[in-house]
Amino acid sequence: MPDTRIAELRVTPIAFYDPPLLNNAGCHQPFALRSIIEVETEGGVIGLGESYGTRAVLDGLAALAPLLPGLEVTDLNGLWAHARQAVRGGQEGYSGDERLLPRVVGAVEVALWDALGKTTGRRVCDLLGGQVRDEVPFSAYLFYKFAGHSGADPDDWGEVLTPEQLVDEARRFKELHGFDAIKLKAGILPPEEEIEGLRALRAAFPEAPLRIDPNGGWTVETTLRLLPQLEGLIEYLEDPTVGIEGNARVQAATDIPLATNMYVVHPSHLPANMAQDAFRVILSDHHYWGGLQASRELAKICEIWGLGLSMHSNSHLGISLAAMTHLAAATPNLTYDCDTHSPWQTDEVIEGGKLAFRNGRLRVPDGPGLGVTLDRTALARLHQNYLDAGITERDDATEMRKHWPDWQFGRPKF
Amino acid sequence: MPDTRIAELRVTPIAFYDPPLLNNAGCHQPFALRSIIEVETEGGVIGLGESYGTRAVLDGLAALAPLLPGLEVTDLNGLWAHARQAVRGGQEGYSGDERLLPRVVGAVEVALWDALGKTTGRRVCDLLGGQVRDEVPFSAYLFYKFAGHSGADPDDWGEVLTPEQLVDEARRFKELHGFDAIKLKAGILPPEEEIEGLRALRAAFPEAPLRIDPNGGWTVETTLRLLPQLEGLIEYLEDPTVGIEGNARVQAATDIPLATNMYVVHPSHLPANMAQDAFRVILSDHHYWGGLQASRELAKICEIWGLGLSMHSNSHLGISLAAMTHLAAATPNLTYDCDTHSPWQTDEVIEGGKLAFRNGRLRVPDGPGLGVTLDRTALARLHQNYLDAGITERDDATEMRKHWPDWQFGRPKF
Repeated sequence: MPDTRIAELRVTPIAFYDPPLLNNAGCHQPFALRSIIEVETEGGVIGLGESYGTRAVLDGLAALAPLLPGLEVTDLNGLWAHARQAVRGGQEGYSGDERLLPRVVGAVEVALWDALGKTTGRRVCDLLGGQVRDEVPFSAYLFYKFAGHSGADPDDWGEVLTPEQLVDEARRFKELHGFDAIKLKAGILPPEEEIEGLRALRAAFPEAPLRIDPNGGWTVETTLRLLPQLEGLIEYLEDPTVGIEGNARVQAATDIPLATNMYVVHPSHLPANMAQDAFRVILSDHHYWGGLQASRELAKICEIWGLGLSMHSNSHLGISLAAMTHLAAATPNLTYDCDTHSPWQTDEVIEGGKLAFRNGRLRVPDGPGLGVTLDRTALARLHQNYLDAGITERDDATEMRKHWPDWQFGRPKF
Repeated sequence: MPDTRIAELRVTPIAFYDPPLLNNAGCHQPFALRSIIEVETEGGVIGLGESYGTRAVLDGLAALAPLLPGLEVTDLNGLWAHARQAVRGGQEGYSGDERLLPRVVGAVEVALWDALGKTTGRRVCDLLGGQVRDEVPFSAYLFYKFAGHSGADPDDWGEVLTPEQLVDEARRFKELHGFDAIKLKAGILPPEEEIEGLRALRAAFPEAPLRIDPNGGWTVETTLRLLPQLEGLIEYLEDPTVGIEGNARVQAATDIPLATNMYVVHPSHLPANMAQDAFRVILSDHHYWGGLQASRELAKICEIWGLGLSMHSNSHLGISLAAMTHLAAATPNLTYDCDTHSPWQTDEVIEGGKLAFRNGRLRVPDGPGLGVTLDRTALARLHQNYLDAGITERDDATEMRKHWPDWQFGRPKF
């Protein structure tokens, strides 16, 4: 068998076009940042990963890179140990951020699974315990949005700020991709307007499971007041208000399961969540949870404690989507359709272009490992975008004020 | 790469000599029952496992065997699904016992890791995430015992029923194997006598971490009364009384961590344990927890919730010991030396004889997979023992009454 020790870790920051999508923190900038990870083994196999493109993650990966050569691709314990050293090795600004370590690990770990799979002729979903579903269901991820970026022409989705426009957006999502469930990113407009949007979606799509995600934008009191309007309308309520305690007060008042990708985002948050019965659905994300193995462990914890499980997504390209699909395909207790930003992205970094949803579902890509290959022409172009864009952090608030100059961030806001 | 689909599952029940060791449930019989598992792949590799030899497990494995051919050795999800079908497939007596399913899975799962390792030239500890310690520390497992089995000559350990005899037993354990920690199996004699034994051990071995395991043999009131004598004397108190609730009352009254292998023996027991703060140390056992992957998940849960972690043992031979050693070697948060009955066993089923402790520690066996090979001559002899012994269940109570005719089981008893 070819040598599976790591020879080199290469990280390429990229920027890809992102539409002017709104959320509680502001508006997506014209470019989303991401990093493309390549782990080359001594045997000449290249494993792929995709993760955040923020400065902290890139710096963490840069510190980790020289520690990895010689490590076996199966040595996840060694990866964690090296990443701990890289991230907490006295570099200023890192030590306090418990969230950085699993992000750095998660970025590399996927590439290790891919390399192992490519070397052994096995798919990542097989290495993760075996495929339990032929197709992974995803949801339509609706956003309020501006017609176009500030100073730019409208994009072909146009403005979405009213219930009617939301229904049109959802219809296009359904026609293009066939999704069943519909999620509405909220916390932007007054809550009554957003719930009116949900009602319009319910009227237009009577069978579609609906969700709303105010990103902590509502107070506890507002949420409690709105609950009667939401009961019977949505399958779960995502992060309505701020923090474990606040959401626990909401969960105690309703049978609608509360879901989160904001307040249970690190293993250390689980005990308090279980003790306080705050969230009954965890939206897992291998990018911040420490990779695929850590996500399997999270899934098992959800199964044991009787929590629901689905997947969170940030703006991402095809390597992330392939990894999410392998993981979901090997996760028995995936209880809700997964989120993905993929339909909003027009750029791609894998050969053959974007993975295509059929009936709102993705099949696990064929071939060993993740089953996807890097398009090096696209990578070079997206890296040049990164260099040209001149941004190293996401800043939705500043972008928002280009459209609504008086906008102020608030969490909770309403 | 050779074909790693399962061709055949073979299960051989065995019986091996066991000394007259005492516990709260009675006395070990002259033979302990066990099963030896062989998973042969289409590629001709044989993976090994060792598990319980009780009727329920053997029946479960027999029902599972015809379902396995064609399954990939990596397909743990498929193994669980097939085992669920085999165990709960309407066969009488099975459906109510949630403990059987993970036992059946655990028996086979280890053999799958061994087969994968042997096929790919990797050690099981490497496949489990990578070795984090060169040597795995085990503890001296002291038992009260009779001089010999009823009607038989004394064995060379002789009678152990007094503090002086306990110290002699411990000294021999230390001399033969070099263990640091000492565990006393208790719940047999009046608790004050057993604690006197602990004090004698403390006097003889001032540095040795001590533990006592009454197997639920004490009432809550007795335990609370004894706590002042135990504080400062032991590193943990194992299952002093019955159940999660009872032990939670004890844990609330002491800083001594309570440990368990009796009341958190299935994933479904974890939420109540965490909610009630009953046990702060889990003694994991891949044989009943569902195998090595499930045990990794348990270890992660212990890490997240801040619980200690060690390993439980029943009477076992070398395949189990090798599996325990690989698992422990790949488990970062192993916080206490592992238990093992191995020094009490004179029979062996692996080539080269028993794995040898050095300074109370075992190195991971060399070679791919578990690194051990089946001694087929020994297997045949131990299987003949099984046929000759004519027992299919463990019955410590009946054995106890051959020595102490008036003995009555009680849990709690004191």
